[in-house]
Amino acid sequence: MRLVTYKNEQVSSMYRMGYEKDGKIVDLERACQEMVTIKQDMNLVDTIESICPSDPNLFFQMGSWSFNKAEEVVSFFQTHDFPHLYYDQKDVKLGPPVVTPHKIICIGTNYKDHVHEMKTELPTYPVLFAKFANALIGPDDSIEKSPLTEKLDYEVELAVVIKEKAKNISKEDAIDYIAGYTIANDISARDLQKRTPQWLQGKTLDRSTPIGPWIVTPQDIKDPQALKIESFVNGERRQSSNTEQMIFKIDEIIEFISSLMTLEPGDIILTGTPDGVGFAQDPPAFLQAGDEVSLSIEEIGTLTNRVIE
Amino acid sequence: MRLVTYKNEQVSSMYRMGYEKDGKIVDLERACQEMVTIKQDMNLVDTIESICPSDPNLFFQMGSWSFNKAEEVVSFFQTHDFPHLYYDQKDVKLGPPVVTPHKIICIGTNYKDHVHEMKTELPTYPVLFAKFANALIGPDDSIEKSPLTEKLDYEVELAVVIKEKAKNISKEDAIDYIAGYTIANDISARDLQKRTPQWLQGKTLDRSTPIGPWIVTPQDIKDPQALKIESFVNGERRQSSNTEQMIFKIDEIIEFISSLMTLEPGDIILTGTPDGVGFAQDPPAFLQAGDEVSLSIEEIGTLTNRVIE
Repeated sequence: MRLVTYKNEQVSSMYRMGYEKDGKIVDLERACQEMVTIKQDMNLVDTIESICPSDPNLFFQMGSWSFNKAEEVVSFFQTHDFPHLYYDQKDVKLGPPVVTPHKIICIGTNYKDHVHEMKTELPTYPVLFAKFANALIGPDDSIEKSPLTEKLDYEVELAVVIKEKAKNISKEDAIDYIAGYTIANDISARDLQKRTPQWLQGKTLDRSTPIGPWIVTPQDIKDPQALKIESFVNGERRQSSNTEQMIFKIDEIIEFISSLMTLEPGDIILTGTPDGVGFAQDPPAFLQAGDEVSLSIEEIGTLTNRVIE
Repeated sequence: MRLVTYKNEQVSSMYRMGYEKDGKIVDLERACQEMVTIKQDMNLVDTIESICPSDPNLFFQMGSWSFNKAEEVVSFFQTHDFPHLYYDQKDVKLGPPVVTPHKIICIGTNYKDHVHEMKTELPTYPVLFAKFANALIGPDDSIEKSPLTEKLDYEVELAVVIKEKAKNISKEDAIDYIAGYTIANDISARDLQKRTPQWLQGKTLDRSTPIGPWIVTPQDIKDPQALKIESFVNGERRQSSNTEQMIFKIDEIIEFISSLMTLEPGDIILTGTPDGVGFAQDPPAFLQAGDEVSLSIEEIGTLTNRVIE
């Protein structure tokens, strides 16, 4: 299942929950209503079932309940026709798959090759830093280059979205708390990131951090630690690695973070970037207005955004 | 005006907006309803006025509107009797004055004396780092000492709460975007803070960071850069300074942060701590379960919390 947020800008300025199927976007709440109606006509249900929430914040707040309901809808419409329910992807705008997460927690220096190029040491503990939701944009938005930076850089990362409240979770149980996986561009203003010892100010510029295009649920990813991960700037490959190169694996990261703080549904964890960032090119190659950054992770998809002033 | 969140645990588990007057807590929504009724009886209004929201998130979301309405209520009841509207402070529980802020942005090393004791250098730019809302507790809660830390430390800080959406605000205009001031204890697990180059993991442990007891609005603070600021552990004075010692002043901080990211109503900025933290005592003196930490800032009040395992 590939969950999206989308809006049809002629109809509303609010993002709604949907899912992607064969290049089409299906509205989850409307599909759910349709499913319930069909089931009633077929005498498959005898009471009105609850409807999957359309509001992304509410959807995540309801955790597993929402995901189970969405699975039911997606599975139902694999054997039922629903041409009146879907949009062509070009007719809607996709948003960040989580619009306003409570937390965005990033893991720094988590690929061996990237640690080397940043001339730093292998970490003993995961390095955690934050972004705030002001930074998030979706796959159909542009990366806004702040006039404060001359060193805007890309970082392709596998992002993990949390499904359930999680505190003190063992790595063996971590998978039960994962809603799914998506792609994030951990855009970093290197000059701002490094002018103080703490990176936050270079990491959370307004509308700088694309995520998407969708959340792929765990059952559709064979092994999240064996995915090809790449980035391209204007078609030129810059990063190319595999998630097997992570120093701390996803289950260890969830165990580690949840020992420190309670994770909430919709929280996003960015799991670090491999080598090849612009900062480490020779000469350094930072992003300029007009550049197109395209990120791909195997079994998830591609996230492409243009840079604007 | 001193705004609080409070709950009467026999009635509800949700915090409501209130204000403090002479040691009593007044429910803002109910007082507002009462005011409207009285004004109608006195023919002072001829239509039903909107009522001040009781939900803290909604209150802050409505920005200046809420604050203006609250001012009107507080001012009205200075000349009207309202014994049936108030609670004794001991009969209610005060919460963090902002319950779920979008952002908690902290300024590191912002007092000259503290920079010295931490053996670091005077910053050229404000050092920004984050906490998340999972860390917040109120004046009637206890600081939860995680078993992961043996070096839990206190830091008294003047906290600024944002009233209106703020982007690229000049320091001259900064005051217009301030909802008010409160006290924060930027509790820091020094061992976790320093085991990686980024401080986040030592700064946002669950239920570690008290704020309160209330938000004092700007008109009730003569000069926020001339306030005595102190901390005490079990009655022993540990920190004693004045907000005039800040390296970056509040208006400069708002100008700086709002050039990087959009501030939202309810966002909290912690403006740094003076010298005297436990880490810098000789020998170091960290917090243990049972300790009582009391913070005072002139013209705001006192925030006292016990440490528990």
